[in-house]
This record gives sequence, C-alpha cells and structure tokens, in this order.
Amino acid sequence: MTTATNNRQFRLVRRPQGAVQAADFTFDAEALRALQDGEVLVQVQYISLDPAMRGWMNESKESYMPPVALGDVMRAITAGKVVDSKHPGFAAGDYVTGLLGVQEYAYSNGQGLTKVNPALAPLPLFLGALGMPGLTAYFGLLDVGQPKAGDTVVVSGAAGAVGALVGQIAKIHGARVIGIAGGADKVRYLTEELGFDAAIDYKSDDMAQALKTLAPQGVDVFFDNVGGAILDTVLMNLAHGARIVLCGAISQYNNQQAMQGPANYLQLLVKRATMRGVMVADYYPRAMEAISAMGGWIAAGQLKTREHVVTGMETFPDTFNKLFTGENNGKLVLKVA
Amino acid sequence: MTTATNNRQFRLVRRPQGAVQAADFTFDAEALRALQDGEVLVQVQYISLDPAMRGWMNESKESYMPPVALGDVMRAITAGKVVDSKHPGFAAGDYVTGLLGVQEYAYSNGQGLTKVNPALAPLPLFLGALGMPGLTAYFGLLDVGQPKAGDTVVVSGAAGAVGALVGQIAKIHGARVIGIAGGADKVRYLTEELGFDAAIDYKSDDMAQALKTLAPQGVDVFFDNVGGAILDTVLMNLAHGARIVLCGAISQYNNQQAMQGPANYLQLLVKRATMRGVMVADYYPRAMEAISAMGGWIAAGQLKTREHVVTGMETFPDTFNKLFTGENNGKLVLKVA
Repeated sequence: MTTATNNRQFRLVRRPQGAVQAADFTFDAEALRALQDGEVLVQVQYISLDPAMRGWMNESKESYMPPVALGDVMRAITAGKVVDSKHPGFAAGDYVTGLLGVQEYAYSNGQGLTKVNPALAPLPLFLGALGMPGLTAYFGLLDVGQPKAGDTVVVSGAAGAVGALVGQIAKIHGARVIGIAGGADKVRYLTEELGFDAAIDYKSDDMAQALKTLAPQGVDVFFDNVGGAILDTVLMNLAHGARIVLCGAISQYNNQQAMQGPANYLQLLVKRATMRGVMVADYYPRAMEAISAMGGWIAAGQLKTREHVVTGMETFPDTFNKLFTGENNGKLVLKVA
Repeated sequence: MTTATNNRQFRLVRRPQGAVQAADFTFDAEALRALQDGEVLVQVQYISLDPAMRGWMNESKESYMPPVALGDVMRAITAGKVVDSKHPGFAAGDYVTGLLGVQEYAYSNGQGLTKVNPALAPLPLFLGALGMPGLTAYFGLLDVGQPKAGDTVVVSGAAGAVGALVGQIAKIHGARVIGIAGGADKVRYLTEELGFDAAIDYKSDDMAQALKTLAPQGVDVFFDNVGGAILDTVLMNLAHGARIVLCGAISQYNNQQAMQGPANYLQLLVKRATMRGVMVADYYPRAMEAISAMGGWIAAGQLKTREHVVTGMETFPDTFNKLFTGENNGKLVLKVA
C-alpha cells in the first residue's frame, strides 16, 4: 500500500526538433486509482536515461519499437519498489526493473517486470552494468564483435554507459583497447581508471592520425555508439576481416537534417569486413549469462562501473540532454525522490 | 612467334574527373622487343571492361589494389593467345587470361596467367561467367549472402555481368529473385529471358513502393552492385537477419563529390542485419568449385550468359563509359582485332 495519492508524470506532447525541450512534455500529476486484480503498483525510484529514448520520441515507424504516442507517458527503463500488488508473482517490498516510464508510480500487469535483489548491488546498477547497457555491451562485443586475444578493439562513446563496459570486457578477453571520447577528463578516466590501453579525444585530437598511430595494424573490432565522422574515420583504419558492431549513432539522433551515412562504407569491401547491428532484446533469453559474468567481474574488481545519478525527476528534459552534450559521466540515471 | 612489330597501348596519363575521357589516355604504338628467358608474349584478343577499373584510375591508396600509375598501361583483365614463349609452363598456341592491360600484346613472367580451353567455351565467357564476374557472383551470393530456399533475394545492377549471374544462381538455389535495373528492356530481359521472379526499373518505378509490394516480408539477401539511393531504399525494406553483400557502388564511381554513404545504415541494427564485403581475390583458391558449378549450369541450360562484345580496342574510353550510363547489355568485353 502507499499513502501517496498523486502520480507526477512526464507525457510527450510534441515531437522534439533537435535537442529535447521542456515544452515537448507536460509534467502534471494525476490521481492514483485503486489497484485491479492481476496488477502491481510500482514506486519508480530510478529512471534510466538512454540515447535510444530520443528515437522513441520521433514519428518514424522504422524503428524496433513503436514511437511514444503523443499524450503518453514518456517511455523509459526504470527500477523501483512494489508498493501494492494484486498479482500472484509480486509482493509489496519486491524490487523490480522494467519499462515503467518517466513517472513516480506505474501500474503493471507484471509483463516485462524483472525482480532484482538490492542486497546484491545498488539499484542503479541494475539499470547499468547489470541491466540493458550491460547486456548490450556483453553480447554486442562478444557475440557480434567476437574479439580474439591480441585484437585491437576500438569503442566510441567510450566513457558512456555501454562503451565503458565494452572496453573493460574487451580487456578481460585479452584485447588491446582504444576508447574514443570527448574531453581530457574522459580520456584520463578511460586510461587511468578503467585500464584502457589508449584513448582518443575526438574533440581535440586528429582522430585519423591518432588511430593510425595507435592501431598501426588496423582495427579488428569497432564497437560504435556514435556514428557520423567517427564511424567514417574508423572505417578508413580497419584491419582485414574487421567486425563493426553497430550499437547506435548518438551523433545523429538530434539531427534535424538527413542522417549522415558512412561515406567510407566500401572499406567493408576492401577489408572484407562486416558491419552488423546488435539489438539487446535478442539476448534477453541469455540475460543470466551476462549478468553472472558481469557480476563476477565487478566482485573481483575487474570491471568498474560509474553511475551518474541526478536527483529530481522534474529535471528530466535537461538531464536527458546531457547524453547528447557529453556532460554525463558514466551511466546517466535520474533519481526520482 | 608473331610477325607484328608494334604494340598499340592505352596508357593512363591523367586522373579522370567524373566520366573517363579520351584525353585521360594516350593511345600509341611501341615496338615489340625480343622475348627474355622466362617470359611469354600474349596477343590480347579480348579485354574485360569492369567497373572496378574506374577505381584503379583514381589517386586513392585506400583500395584493394594500388592505383594505375600515370604513364602506365591501363590495367585490365584480358583473354588472349600465347604467340611466343620462353617460359616452361606456356607454349605458343596456349590461351590464357590475366591482368595484361589495354594493349594488343603483353609480356608476362607467367605470374597470374591462367590457361583456359577455348574448346570448352568461347573466350569472352572466361572473362564473364567463367571468370572474375562469375566467381564474384558465385561466392558473393553463396558464401556471403547465404540464401536459403524461399528467401527473397534482391540484386542491383541486375542486368550487368555480375548481377545477371547472381539472380540466376539464387533461382537455382530456390530463392525468389527480384532484380533492380535501368530501363524496360533490361526488366524484360531479367524476367522473360533469365527467369527472375520480378524486376524493378529504378529509372521509372517508385522503387520503395515496388519493393514493399514485391517483397512484403522484406528482403533476406541484397547483393549490391550500385550503392547510392538504391542501397538506401533496400535498407528500409530488410527482413529480420538480412544479409547485404557489398560488391560495388557503380552509382558513385564517377562521382566528383564525396561518396554518398547509406543514410539508412542503422536499419542494420533495427533488423539485426549484416553488411559484408565480398572480394573475389579471396576465393581464387576455390575458383574451380565455382567454375565447374557454373559450367555445369550453363551446359544444362540453367544459367544464361550474355556478352556484349564491342570490336575495336581504339574505342576503349567510350566503350568503357557504357558501364556507367547503363548502355551495356550483359558482360561488356572489348574485342581487340
């Protein structure tokens, strides 16, 4: 049971043009209602802010998920506590993750909810290394990228939620790892704290030159979160038989012009290389494999995680934009209360 | 021995801008010289005109072969007859194929020369279905594209040397085949003569609409020779797990602007699709596998070939340009004499 009577929610009311603005949403409270049979009521405590959400705000039907309809609560992955349940599978006090949206409370029929144990790890970690970004990094790198010991692995968006994990998992598998990120602080974080072999600051370094110097034999695996000029530069530096793991293109999501395609894509031909997409939902049946591996590495001190927690759901539009300006440091999470 | 004393040659003297012009070459005769030990002299009879040659004329070092140096005989795959030999592996009267260039006679140390038997097939066929385009089609489709029976296979440049073979090999393997080509004649050729299930005229049809209608379940395998708008359109119509075989991008080779990259490449992510390049040289060790399969299908009437033979080496620049204007019908070959 909860004593709250109101539920504050961000509803999408306008398709953003470029960066998200506060006026693209309403932020109002609606009254909580009585729970129906088969339902649970979850108090949302943490809201995961992920680049993919920007795509969900667009009209396009050409994505892997339908767009958020105008008037609907903004879709987001969340972690929270069951405060009331008329569902046999959940009891008040359970902790869960799921697509419950940018709101304080959510009703659910239990579909898509995953119970998590907050004694094992802080709740935000289930939105990061032990959640969707963790699965994306683990299966994208190992299943699609297939790095071998001694390979040169490059990851873009390397200080982000997925990228930081990718680089560390690649190191654990014996690869040489080069991160691409924006700014001296991130470069330092990657090389000094996470153990990357090298990092390139795309904002100040000559990327093409740096890549040639750091990867003279070419790039065996490129895990791309960014797209645009970074993808084109790495394409010109592939090793024979390279694998490019397409995870995202954050440089393009706020674009108001047409998407910039990789002009150098014929290097895939010259280098007999492969470009393949990774979609985390395909790996949900194997989630436990990733979570136990990641959990073990975290416990052993081999994998470091960093959550960037911003408190106050009301800051949602501004905080979300940090993903695109690069102001986030680690997995960006909104703490509701 | 030959009684000829002169060798007419096309030498590249200027990097073409856009379409090739006659003034990009010199066309002069040089005297034949005495044969040295270990050499053969080949009378070039047929010169294969292939889109890749346009790339070899550019300065860029980012290709799979070095550019043709200014002043050098233009590189080309040819078929011809050994007219003199001081090489133990070849005798006068042998027929060979190899990279002998746009010239009437060529000296060779035998490296890269392949003996062919003109009793088995007309010589130009060894530059087409039984040569490089045949290997490209066979291994690109079967090894990289991996079509299954019932798959929908789309091929661009479908009336070209490689495309026409790809579509027919896919049919032999039980796929549904849709060709993309320019003009009503080519569409008719593909559907009425080669047995394609359907063909789209990119010059007059609404490609996106036609693809949606003809491939309502999406495209399982796309063999791309063209790039540009055609690649972007097919990317929007992929089936789950689709394979894109990158073979070329003829729409872009004469470009004087930057290469147009596929703006819709993130569909690879949405559809868990793969884009991979095929480079025929990788398959030379397995050439006999393709040639015997293709030869068998030709003999059985399952595979039709068409060579577009233009007589007169002196027409080289103009004839070469037919590849890019789409004026060729089938494998374009220049007959020297």
